[in-house]
Amino acid sequence: MTVSLELDHLRVVLVRTRNPLNIGAAARAMSNFGFHHLRVVNPYEVAFRQARSAVGASALLANAEVYGTVDEAVADCSLVVGTTAVRNRELHHQLRPIEYGARLMLKQLASGPVALLFGSEKAGLSNADLSHCHWLVRIPTREENISMNLGQAVAVCLYELVRDSQIKSTHLSEKAKSQKSRKSQGLDSHQSAPMVEVERITSVLFDVLRATRYWNPGAGAATEVKVRRLVRRLNIPVGDAEVWLGILRQILWKIRSGEKSLP
Amino acid sequence: MTVSLELDHLRVVLVRTRNPLNIGAAARAMSNFGFHHLRVVNPYEVAFRQARSAVGASALLANAEVYGTVDEAVADCSLVVGTTAVRNRELHHQLRPIEYGARLMLKQLASGPVALLFGSEKAGLSNADLSHCHWLVRIPTREENISMNLGQAVAVCLYELVRDSQIKSTHLSEKAKSQKSRKSQGLDSHQSAPMVEVERITSVLFDVLRATRYWNPGAGAATEVKVRRLVRRLNIPVGDAEVWLGILRQILWKIRSGEKSLP
Repeated sequence: MTVSLELDHLRVVLVRTRNPLNIGAAARAMSNFGFHHLRVVNPYEVAFRQARSAVGASALLANAEVYGTVDEAVADCSLVVGTTAVRNRELHHQLRPIEYGARLMLKQLASGPVALLFGSEKAGLSNADLSHCHWLVRIPTREENISMNLGQAVAVCLYELVRDSQIKSTHLSEKAKSQKSRKSQGLDSHQSAPMVEVERITSVLFDVLRATRYWNPGAGAATEVKVRRLVRRLNIPVGDAEVWLGILRQILWKIRSGEKSLP
Repeated sequence: MTVSLELDHLRVVLVRTRNPLNIGAAARAMSNFGFHHLRVVNPYEVAFRQARSAVGASALLANAEVYGTVDEAVADCSLVVGTTAVRNRELHHQLRPIEYGARLMLKQLASGPVALLFGSEKAGLSNADLSHCHWLVRIPTREENISMNLGQAVAVCLYELVRDSQIKSTHLSEKAKSQKSRKSQGLDSHQSAPMVEVERITSVLFDVLRATRYWNPGAGAATEVKVRRLVRRLNIPVGDAEVWLGILRQILWKIRSGEKSLP
């Protein structure tokens, strides 16, 4: 199997992983299935050091990137997918079976970076983590024992991506070709904007909501999480991101200039 | 999900496993995916004792059957399938991709016990072990790093069995059910908002763009058309339409109240 461009676009993001064996296991599964880019967010320091220095730890692990926040870890990705075992919690996100989710991810991987997030062994992804996700996938485990080992969950998700890409490999390369030609015609503006631009828009929107008193002065992190999700659900096209940012900045400027002139 | 008879017919057979963590991981994946019958052949004695006495070790592990030989461990099975990472060795067995192999196994599982064998971490299944197998399956790992962690290999194989059986039966009905209940709870909020709501949002946005002077006073129909398209490209979810409308109205109110107070 050669390294496919699609698979090379995946960023496996481990958030607050505590067990070094799980980081190592994730890296091994990535290597097995042809993925290269591991990102760890705020890992339990000792765990990460141990995993990196383990016998047989791969180049993949040595090259893993460490981030302080999920925000930074997904900045260059145009699609962010979270993993969860939970079904009954009031989810604010669409929850897709991994079989189907993998197919959607592969489509996006053909054109650019996609992040797949895995939470900590104990608590999974927090609501704040989830607020960075476009949607979630779940593995079909039983109600009676829903929660998978982290390394095994990573293996199953990556297998599903490879499984799909193999079955569809010819299909995809054809698709990539047609997208390439679309790109050369400058028609790729409908794809989702990368997260760094979406977060920029979100951040100006926060300022607007504060300036308009749509938010109470005391509005905290939970409110921000809600609006962050709201913005992600829009799937702002990359070709429109600058326009929306411009509109929001104009709004902010206007509100502030109005306030300055208050008696 | 109820225990399906098919899945209950599978015997997961670990041959000469050395690492207790791997025995535990195999048991956990079995429990996740609804399999109950673990058999261990000639395990490294200490490893098995450790795995069994581990905190959280399951009933599944306590009920695991220990055999001295592969022969005895597969005696009641009508189909015996081996797992291997190897591709180039002179195989005397048919080697099937796991996606296809799982489908054949499911057919057999409908009528009686099937064994799925996993070899030791270091050497896999020996030629003697393989001689008990009808055929072999392999997971599509890369040539460059072909060998999977045992616990992860078990997870992927069992996932593939469940994936197949679910797509064909329980899963489908579950999906239908969850969709039905989502609908009855009015949670289909991810669908795009109807055009009447989108146009309401668009119209308030027009007012905002005029009020902020983002638009020149003379801006005409062509400019409106552009922004109308811009809004439609967002595919605003029906569940979010009211929130966006509220935000825009608040912005408009704030700008106008600022203007009124101008000297």
